[in-house]
Amino acid sequence: MSITRVAIIGLGLLGGSIGLAVKARGLAIATTGWDLDAAVRERAAARGLVGEVHESAEDAVAHADLVILCVPVGAMGDAARRIAPGLAPHAIVSDVGSSKAAVAEALAAALPGACIIPAHPVAGTEQSGPEAGFATLFAGRWCIITPPEDADPAAVEALSEFWTALGSKVELMDAAHHDLVLAVTSHIPHLIAYTIVGTASDLEDVTQSEVIKYSAGGFRDFTRIAASDPVMWRDVFLTNKGAVLEMLGRFTEDLTALQRAIRSGDGDTLFDLFTRTRAIRRQVVEQGQDDERPDFGREHGA
Amino acid sequence: MSITRVAIIGLGLLGGSIGLAVKARGLAIATTGWDLDAAVRERAAARGLVGEVHESAEDAVAHADLVILCVPVGAMGDAARRIAPGLAPHAIVSDVGSSKAAVAEALAAALPGACIIPAHPVAGTEQSGPEAGFATLFAGRWCIITPPEDADPAAVEALSEFWTALGSKVELMDAAHHDLVLAVTSHIPHLIAYTIVGTASDLEDVTQSEVIKYSAGGFRDFTRIAASDPVMWRDVFLTNKGAVLEMLGRFTEDLTALQRAIRSGDGDTLFDLFTRTRAIRRQVVEQGQDDERPDFGREHGA
Repeated sequence: MSITRVAIIGLGLLGGSIGLAVKARGLAIATTGWDLDAAVRERAAARGLVGEVHESAEDAVAHADLVILCVPVGAMGDAARRIAPGLAPHAIVSDVGSSKAAVAEALAAALPGACIIPAHPVAGTEQSGPEAGFATLFAGRWCIITPPEDADPAAVEALSEFWTALGSKVELMDAAHHDLVLAVTSHIPHLIAYTIVGTASDLEDVTQSEVIKYSAGGFRDFTRIAASDPVMWRDVFLTNKGAVLEMLGRFTEDLTALQRAIRSGDGDTLFDLFTRTRAIRRQVVEQGQDDERPDFGREHGA
Repeated sequence: MSITRVAIIGLGLLGGSIGLAVKARGLAIATTGWDLDAAVRERAAARGLVGEVHESAEDAVAHADLVILCVPVGAMGDAARRIAPGLAPHAIVSDVGSSKAAVAEALAAALPGACIIPAHPVAGTEQSGPEAGFATLFAGRWCIITPPEDADPAAVEALSEFWTALGSKVELMDAAHHDLVLAVTSHIPHLIAYTIVGTASDLEDVTQSEVIKYSAGGFRDFTRIAASDPVMWRDVFLTNKGAVLEMLGRFTEDLTALQRAIRSGDGDTLFDLFTRTRAIRRQVVEQGQDDERPDFGREHGA
């Protein structure tokens, strides 16, 4: 099975980056695209995010071998219904959503009989919209593919090859396990960041101006994550509720234990944890998942 | 009051960066230094962190107009006792500790009658030790000075000028208020980062290898903060207990409210918060407290 035509539905950070990556890598693949928002379609065409921007989802997917839905997880069902009339019988329908069991269910309900292979490239920035995408977003990052049990192996292979061609490393995983793993490596970190930024901005005894001025003490890192797209993240939490609540429970238990250690002046418990976590950072850097330069390579004294 | 000779006690990230900044900016200030660890003294001399590395704290501070204690907050009292015999009567004793009320108390007890003006440059990286310092660490960052009520205004002015000469912006603040502000902009963010990295590495149903592979989903940001110096941070939590527990209580309340919103499927509450926090990020960037490039300017596809 060979992919020569890809339709991208939703032309924001992820959709735009896929289109730009196909172009920058000189792949022999034609790209088409569509977005619900006419202003986004216009910007996407101006930036050349895909070869051709269409005025309807149905037109955009015509003759495509692969359709990738790059919309918030809560909008997947609607996007699937819009493409249904134009979908080629042999087309693979995939997506880039951050929760996978709910997406698989929504797509299966909207597109009975279609070849559905959900996927999740673990890549992004805090920016969103048609100006945010760039061709190297997926390079060196993992893309998790979560094929249904009855998936056509040739389709899974074709999708894997597509992501590999964009520079990603591909891993196959069960959707439920994906949702648990990403709850801890992505969803809970976002939830915590949103929370602390909200807490800090609501204080009465510390002004918002103070919070911003002294944010270099650590807080500013959280503001980056908490600047991520609100619709996308609302949908992630609503569609991966079970795993998020489970992991949140474990986080809260651990935080309560640390709170007790601080209250009782138990320095050893603090020191032991803080030493252990340092080793995790080393592995993240060693495995190429983050910049080894201090402070993320931020410019100092610019 | 003119500062022409500065002694730096503790030659890690902060102490080393002060020495390097004095040199790089060509200030007419001689620097001396000492560290409890002989290996650190050797590396500091080799890197030229200060003009002269001494073999005792007492010798290092002789004739200094300003002594800056750059040791973990829990070691301030001990460092102060070591410098006492060599301290010039006119010398200002300051520090760089992240909690201020406890440090002021420890220094006053160890150095009765001395001119003590605590300070906290809100700057750092996740690295520590004599190799970690660099001359531009303080450029454009705030330094909070917390003078005791009876402080000599000329000494406060001299210390302010010193930090300004290193490129910092200076703010005066009451020690108790400093401790509350920094609890939210620095201490709680660190505590949360340490906790989630610990939680993630302890899971049974998600392997550590998975946590690291998919850390680009947000988790890797937390691993950077959670790689910070364990002794320094243990001491921060033990010495700023009151403010940390107070702010932790507010964070936990807010997190519980979000947990309830997720459980009940209340998307509006999530969306409203996520939109509000995005605006805070904009202000952090606009006020020059973080890099405006997406993803902290991390290199993609390197």
